[in-house]
Amino acid sequence: MSVLALCGGVGGAKLAQGLYRALPPDSLTVVVNTGDDFDHLGLRICPDLDTVLYTLGGLADPVRGWGRQDETWNFMEAIRGLGGESWFQLGDRDLALHVERTGHLRDGGTLTAFIARAARQFGIAAQILPMSDDDVRTMVTTEEGTLVFQRYFVERRCAPVVKALEFVGAAFARPAAALDRVAADPALRAIVICPSNPYLSIDPILAVPGMRRLLEQAAVPVIAVSPLIGGQAVKGPTAKIMAELGIPAATAAIAAHYRPLIDGLLIDQTDAADAEGLGIPVAVARTLMRDEDDRLRLAHEALAFADRLRAGGARRGGRTTTLTGRSA
Amino acid sequence: MSVLALCGGVGGAKLAQGLYRALPPDSLTVVVNTGDDFDHLGLRICPDLDTVLYTLGGLADPVRGWGRQDETWNFMEAIRGLGGESWFQLGDRDLALHVERTGHLRDGGTLTAFIARAARQFGIAAQILPMSDDDVRTMVTTEEGTLVFQRYFVERRCAPVVKALEFVGAAFARPAAALDRVAADPALRAIVICPSNPYLSIDPILAVPGMRRLLEQAAVPVIAVSPLIGGQAVKGPTAKIMAELGIPAATAAIAAHYRPLIDGLLIDQTDAADAEGLGIPVAVARTLMRDEDDRLRLAHEALAFADRLRAGGARRGGRTTTLTGRSA
Repeated sequence: MSVLALCGGVGGAKLAQGLYRALPPDSLTVVVNTGDDFDHLGLRICPDLDTVLYTLGGLADPVRGWGRQDETWNFMEAIRGLGGESWFQLGDRDLALHVERTGHLRDGGTLTAFIARAARQFGIAAQILPMSDDDVRTMVTTEEGTLVFQRYFVERRCAPVVKALEFVGAAFARPAAALDRVAADPALRAIVICPSNPYLSIDPILAVPGMRRLLEQAAVPVIAVSPLIGGQAVKGPTAKIMAELGIPAATAAIAAHYRPLIDGLLIDQTDAADAEGLGIPVAVARTLMRDEDDRLRLAHEALAFADRLRAGGARRGGRTTTLTGRSA
Repeated sequence: MSVLALCGGVGGAKLAQGLYRALPPDSLTVVVNTGDDFDHLGLRICPDLDTVLYTLGGLADPVRGWGRQDETWNFMEAIRGLGGESWFQLGDRDLALHVERTGHLRDGGTLTAFIARAARQFGIAAQILPMSDDDVRTMVTTEEGTLVFQRYFVERRCAPVVKALEFVGAAFARPAAALDRVAADPALRAIVICPSNPYLSIDPILAVPGMRRLLEQAAVPVIAVSPLIGGQAVKGPTAKIMAELGIPAATAAIAAHYRPLIDGLLIDQTDAADAEGLGIPVAVARTLMRDEDDRLRLAHEALAFADRLRAGGARRGGRTTTLTGRSA
């Protein structure tokens, strides 16, 4: 039985790793946000894809949450010594991925092929797919003007107040070629939206034409894991952005955001009281992932939730809307 | 009083540093070979220019002879982990120079401007000039076919037997724009050809149109420091290449090679017996540069030699050919 997961960077990658460990090695496909990708110092940087690669490959820095473990920063120090742009940190080991990718793309290769090669080199049996090989760029319109995502996220540390998000190029982007096959696989067990930022990390994926339909028409349950715990994101600006966009940072808003696409929402035990009245089946679990055991446990919770929904007859088009409230 | 030096990489850069220390800080101009430059992993690499930058900037690795001191190699390790090309070593700190340069050139900047900026950042008061902003590429025709220089020099470790050398693009290259001013400077004291490989490092410079004439018409003595000591090069393939090209690896061959351009040849004390009959004024000194004091001492010897030649009336067009043998 295989699973399709959608995810962004750090938080989502943790659950993706849990799913990878919970399933037979070649049973997971992860579709990853590329809206954060950008060109910097002449190199193509793909923050979310690289986080997923490093996390599933067991190479991620466990403390920092991004980049590689045992990383050194001598390149950055030398860049500063030359008066170069140093607002975006590139580790010495991490650089290799950007240099190799940039060369691969310059030679006419696809991002999908490069990520598949890197995954193979890192010994990853899961299929990691960029949401598209076409450029999609998340633009953040703020009170201080429109910023490309990394300028907003890294250089400005999410300080500017967000007024709108746009995924430039998404309308003309073709979804990852392998997705149709994955979605049509009779062995597919569930589709899981990882606890990434719904607005910054998942919406760009959903903005690629065909992606929403793929979820709507899936023959298996689609579930989302809420990124909020007690109205806060574990990491990142989810709650801040929701507030700035006039959305209450609460489970109900996450449920409303994903409701047209999902069959069930998995929320944190802290928010168990929110489970009623969301208009969608809900499961409750401890969603905080502090270590790899937490990731594995949450993955099993998510899969069990999807299996219960499936057994209960939930699926796209015929969703069992009677199944409201806590489904456990 | 100012000095113009021509040099390639390691050996030449050592004397360039000696000259830099021997003179007032802003009195040295170094014209550097760019025939070894190449594009690798999407980056423009300029080995000789970078060696001169690091050496004059006090950043060079004193043991390895190339690259930066306190260097780390995590980028290369990660490149190998990705199955990338790893035959050319790029240190983590060194990489910054290549990334910044590649961006500068991509944005339409000149190599000359980039090197000037890097020299400034490294606190170097000397003027370091690429021989040309136009691409010149040293091609090595060997018994195994024609190789670009770095493939011959680094990847093949100079193993293939050399049949011919060609400096592709040299015929159409324009010499460094600042050179005319330097050569015409009334304060110019001497022109020094550093003890680099005459065939691989100095000939590409001399192949740039106007460069030989600049030396021939200089109003000051032009001297060369022989790269041979006892028929061997201190480092590098000079003697091997001379043998393969059918040239005896001896002082006489170096003298014959440079004779049309120079007013005097400085040779090592080991080769003092060769001083007679070279048809050119000769000075003898200890040319081996094991430490910075050696570099400074040799620089003073070279300058004193040039000053003696000047006092003796040597200059282009009116060279004092009677001054043969040891001039000291």
